Formats: sequence, C-alpha cells, structure tokens
Amino acid sequence: MSELKGACIFGQSGGPTSVINASAYGVIATALKNPNITRVLGAEHGIKGVLNDRLFDMGQEDPAELELLKYTPSSALGSCRYKMADPDVDDTDYKRILEIFKKYDVRYFFYNGGNDSMDTCNKISKFMQQSGYECRVIGIPKTIDNDLYGTDHCPGFGSAAKFIATSCMEVHQDLRVYDKGRVTIVEIMGRHAGWLAGSAALATYAGAGPDLVYLPEVPFNMEEFWQDVNGIYRSKGSCMVAVSEGVRHADGRFIAESGDKDVFGHTQLGGLGAMLAESVKRQTGAKVRSIELSLLQRCASHVASKTDIDEAYMAGKAAVEAAVAGQTDKMVAFERSTENGQYVCKAKLIGLTDVANVEKLVPREWINPRGNGMEQPFIDYVLPLIQGETSMRKEHSLPRFAKLKKIQAEPVRN
Amino acid sequence: MSELKGACIFGQSGGPTSVINASAYGVIATALKNPNITRVLGAEHGIKGVLNDRLFDMGQEDPAELELLKYTPSSALGSCRYKMADPDVDDTDYKRILEIFKKYDVRYFFYNGGNDSMDTCNKISKFMQQSGYECRVIGIPKTIDNDLYGTDHCPGFGSAAKFIATSCMEVHQDLRVYDKGRVTIVEIMGRHAGWLAGSAALATYAGAGPDLVYLPEVPFNMEEFWQDVNGIYRSKGSCMVAVSEGVRHADGRFIAESGDKDVFGHTQLGGLGAMLAESVKRQTGAKVRSIELSLLQRCASHVASKTDIDEAYMAGKAAVEAAVAGQTDKMVAFERSTENGQYVCKAKLIGLTDVANVEKLVPREWINPRGNGMEQPFIDYVLPLIQGETSMRKEHSLPRFAKLKKIQAEPVRN
Repeated sequence: MSELKGACIFGQSGGPTSVINASAYGVIATALKNPNITRVLGAEHGIKGVLNDRLFDMGQEDPAELELLKYTPSSALGSCRYKMADPDVDDTDYKRILEIFKKYDVRYFFYNGGNDSMDTCNKISKFMQQSGYECRVIGIPKTIDNDLYGTDHCPGFGSAAKFIATSCMEVHQDLRVYDKGRVTIVEIMGRHAGWLAGSAALATYAGAGPDLVYLPEVPFNMEEFWQDVNGIYRSKGSCMVAVSEGVRHADGRFIAESGDKDVFGHTQLGGLGAMLAESVKRQTGAKVRSIELSLLQRCASHVASKTDIDEAYMAGKAAVEAAVAGQTDKMVAFERSTENGQYVCKAKLIGLTDVANVEKLVPREWINPRGNGMEQPFIDYVLPLIQGETSMRKEHSLPRFAKLKKIQAEPVRN
Repeated sequence: MSELKGACIFGQSGGPTSVINASAYGVIATALKNPNITRVLGAEHGIKGVLNDRLFDMGQEDPAELELLKYTPSSALGSCRYKMADPDVDDTDYKRILEIFKKYDVRYFFYNGGNDSMDTCNKISKFMQQSGYECRVIGIPKTIDNDLYGTDHCPGFGSAAKFIATSCMEVHQDLRVYDKGRVTIVEIMGRHAGWLAGSAALATYAGAGPDLVYLPEVPFNMEEFWQDVNGIYRSKGSCMVAVSEGVRHADGRFIAESGDKDVFGHTQLGGLGAMLAESVKRQTGAKVRSIELSLLQRCASHVASKTDIDEAYMAGKAAVEAAVAGQTDKMVAFERSTENGQYVCKAKLIGLTDVANVEKLVPREWINPRGNGMEQPFIDYVLPLIQGETSMRKEHSLPRFAKLKKIQAEPVRN
C-alpha cells in the first residue's frame, strides 16, 4: 500500500433516501479527521458538480450542522441522473473531470448512488488510470429499492420499509372504522423489484396489515387480483392490498401503463393505485380507496430506522478508510451474519465491475405460491433492518435539518 | 346536584383521528374508577351499537391494553356516520335507545364526535327528559378538521397538523434534489375549513415548507394560481404548493368537482392535486408532481402531538367528571390561556345547543391578502398544539396498538 495525499470529492447521485446524508456524514466526518486527506470537497448535484466546478469546502461547515446530516433526508448536496458517455466514444466529460481533479489535487473520489453511479465510478477510475493520474475511487451504495447486487441490503431501504410498514399498520386501523368496511389499495414504490412492496407485509406480521401483497417479481393477473380481493372482502368485510408500482403483465408491460380505456375508461392520471381501485369498484361493487405513499417513502426521516442510519454512516466511513488504506475500484457492501442470535452487519468491499447492471430481485420462494403475499424468510430478512428509532433533532417539535453554508472551494495554488 | 348511579355508554362517531382513542381512554379509565358509574359500556360503531345492542363491557378489558388506546389511531370501538331522525317526525330510534338504556341501566351517555354527534347527543337527551328517564349526556369533541364551534381547538387537529407540517418539511428537502427543480403540489384534507392546509405553513415557519398555501376560506382563482406558481418557479427554480381539497370557485363549486374536460381533458380520477398538477404542467411547462397526504393525516399516530394526546385524554376525563357532578346537555370544550408565557389549555363546558351546526373557519385576517399564504397569528395559534412527542409503545420497532377483547355486556337483572 502506498500512501496517497490529496483532497477528496464526495458526491450523491440518483434518487435520494431518508439516510443518504448519513452516508455523506460518514464520508465527511471520517475524511476531515484523516491526515492523508487534505481537503473534503462536496460536489453539487453529483458528477455534474465536478463537471461544472461546483465544489463546496466541507471543512468550512459548522461541525454541529454536519452532524445533523445523519437525520436530514434527501441529498443535502444535490443529486443528479447524469449518464456518462462511454469514454471510448466521447471522453469530453472524463477530460474535464481530470482537469478538475488536478485543479483541486483530488486523489480520492467517493460516489454515493445506485447501479448507474457504480458504472460512473468504474469509468472514471479506468480513465484516471489510463491517464496516469493516481486517484482512488470507492462507491457507496444507496437506494430505497434495495435492488443492488453484491450487498445483503442497501442503505435507505430499511427506513423506507419502516415508513411503509408503520403507515400500513396505521391505515389498517382505519380500515374497519365503519360497520361497512372497504377495500384499501396502497401503492408502493419500486419499479423493478418488490422489496418495498413486500415490506408492507411487516405490518401484517406485526398484527395489522395488508391481506394481499403484489410484487413485480410475479406476473400480475388482473382476473386473479379481482378474485383475491373479492374473496377477502366478502369473507372479512374489508380488504387491504399493498401493490408495487412495478407490477407487470406476463409479457412484461407495466400494468400502470396498460392504458386500456375499453376496460377502465379513463386516463390514468392517478397512477396504478387509482386505476386498480377503479377496477375493483366496478368488479366487486365495494367501496374502494387508493393511497399512494409517494415521495414520503424516500424522505420520511422522522420514522427512519436507527439500524439504517448507523449502517449508512458506516458505509461512508468504510469507504474513506478503505481508500486511505490503498483500495480503489470497489463498492462498499454489507454482509449480514448472526452473533449470539443477534443480527450483525459488517462492511466489506466488492469490485465495481461485480456490481454490474443487474437488479437484485426478491427470491421467488420468499413470495407465496399464489404470488399475493410474503413468506416468513422475507420477514426475517427485512425485520432487523427497520430496528431502532432515529435521534432526529427537533425544534418546536418539528425536524431541525442540517443547514449547510456550501462555500465554493478554492483551487490549489501551484 | 343529585347523585346518580348507573352504567355509562361511550361511543365514537364520524371520521377518526390519531388521538380519538385517547379520549376513549380518558372516559373509560375515569369512569371505571368512579363509584357512581356501575359499569362502563363501549358502543360498537357509535349510536348504531346502541341501536343494535352491541355493547362491550370495558371493565373486562386488560387495563394495560386499555392504556395503549392513548397511542392507537382510529376509532377502536368503531365509528358511524348515522344521522338520527327528528324525534318529532320519527321516534323509532329514540324509543329503541331508551329501551337499551333501561336494559343496561344506563344513566350516563358520552359521545365523541363532531357537529352531527353533538346534534345526536342533544336529541337523545331531550327525548330522555321527555320520557322522564334520568340520563346525563355529555359530548366530547373530535375532528382533524378543527371546525367545531365553541372550542379553541379540537382534539385530533394538533396531531394531523403535526403530520402535515413534518411531511411537508421532508418533501421540501426532496424538492431541490436535482439541479432542475420542480413544482410539487401537496393535497391536504379539509373539505370546508382550511385549518389543516394552513398547518402546512408551519413547515415554512420551521425553515422548509410550501411557498404557497390555498384554503377553502378564500375563493380559488385558477389564473392567479398559475401566475403565483409560475412566478415562484421562474425565480426560485422550484415551487411547493399546499392546497386544501376544499378549495372552491367564487360561486362555491369545489375546484375538485369542476370536471372541465375542455380545460383538463381527463377524468379526475386522481383528485384535486393531480388535476392542479396537470394544469400547471400545461400552463408552465414545469415538471410537476402531486402528493395526496390522504388517510395518513388522520391516522399517523407515530408522529402524534403529545399535547394533543394529553388534551384528548383530558376531554374524555372531563366529560365523566362533569356528568358525575350533575352536568348534562353539554359538550367539553377547550379554553386557551397563557400563564407565564406558556400555553395552557383547560377544559370547560358549553351547551350542546350552542355548538350548533356552524363550521368554524380560519379567520380571513390569518390568511395573507392575496389568499395564498398564512399570517403569523395562524402560526401562533397552531404551534402550541403540535408540541411534544408520543410515547407510543413499539414492538419490533413497529407500533403496538391496543387489542381489545370486546366482550358483549350482559343486561342488568331485574
């Protein structure tokens, strides 16, 4: 291992989570203390901030405000959805990044995101190597969707799962308020994988949750759906459904995009939940309500999981420690084990190329045979990830989020 | 004051709140300890439970479970939306109620609800008096809408306001994640009064909330709305709007029901927020998202206000104490004062007939002149009501709600 001195850049990419800033704090707090890291720069809107020379000097922030990042949802530095070109086709961006890295003597690059971001890390790292510029690159995972390959789970998922389960329990209490019950359909995020929708089953496990859960992993059959709902509604007098926005026909088309006006007779302005509700109303005559948990799933930090916050922080910290110790071209991943019957999660490193662009789906055997509910192994998997309460600071009993000064960094003097 | 011995019936009516069961616990716990109250009966689905002879013996419940009612959202005994006939026109229901009261020796009737429920209380009380049957009747207010006349505020409102303000703060963090911002429209409950929508302004007060707030109290002008949104979006790069579901045209028609297909070209499946979002998209070209906070507003007990919980409990307790002390035909109301600069809330009694069927609206001067934001007196009014955190019990870091046995009561033996 060679010692490498220089500045680091940290950036956030893709859709935010309730705890993505806990990873930011893990990186920033650890890097600020490390003697090999001369300066900690935060990129505004991820890689775009590097390209646009919008880099904030995190050392000039108030340490108390930085600490509040642990409990502040959504990307504090701003995120992006910028897809880098293949450097063999167009290396303009990469040359610009190299220029900026030299301008600020950047020797460490930490990037917090999903699949695409790991691809970005990989391409940048390769280009730097080819250019003979020494820079260590470590990716940090995040996504409420929990669909990253190579890690037991992703920071951000546990808190989203906890919000979903808690909300489903509360909505379930509301289900039988009147003597004539109703069908309630809760639409849950997750376009490709059903980890979030499946988490609604935690509510049922805890005593009061959805009767039916539909994931994108199992082809969605509208006739069976109507049968399932109607059967439960007829026998119980009410029915609660959790459905992933990503449920699909057997041929892969999203149900939400079927847009079959002959069947539903309306433009799908209200999304999948509203569409399914309308169809159930017509098919069963039941009173139906749909609820879209919407953005709250990725930003409801007031009900975040302490486990998730701590692990998100750990991921950021591990990235810095690994890079300083000589690692590069890696992503921090989580490894789960059991010690004395207790859930334990440790950080490990996997190759950036190993993350690939593969989505990790919910194993079919964790979903029941009919494809409308979850099996115990799924519950056992998710439950440890939602444990513990946030220590969010409050003022006037409302969240007190981090306020950053975001002072543009000065280039190094030559 | 004459001493009156007998059973009491407690019932819940109308839409539930996060803390309606805290009032139930206030009634039940206080009544169970009172020597003049021989038995505490809970009516299933409010007055319907009386009519149907579905009365639970609350004395047979586990006291620890009863205590969890303080933190359990939605009507634990079930609610109803049953409108009693005018007894001069049809006294069938009233005769039946008298029959049931005699069957169980009921001398106290406590009813927890809104305007209609106070009307029900009033009619029942009058009928009992005319029939020469001694029974004391006390109403307990509840409504997230906060539109009951004669009380400073209503149990349930503070917790709903807190959920709305907290969620708006979190959603606001998400607003500027990408470098290209967007317009986010949050649709908030409150068909007739804007107390809940106005509470979104607490988020702005706390540092991060809606730029624009629209209440039903001010006629909604679509052109002005587009101007307001566009102006803020152009200058800030993003715009957050909180809008009450009850906003209306100057002629009183709900905007949500305008259904103008020529203007919006779609069926309004997604409700007001989705409709306004679509119109803003067309008018401004901005990226727009709408979020409906939906049922969560009345059941998100995990973020309930301790002040609201305590006051809801106090209202139930005060009802029992007043009735035992000889009061009848009253509703418990709240009186606010300031002691040593601190907010203080005390229970008082007002006549059931004084509650009337009048809706208490947000004073016009608490809304800004343009009708798109709140003034400081509104903030000063709401802020004390959201203070303090719930002591909700959790298991597996998920809510542990009260589980009642609901054992049907036996009639008294003659």
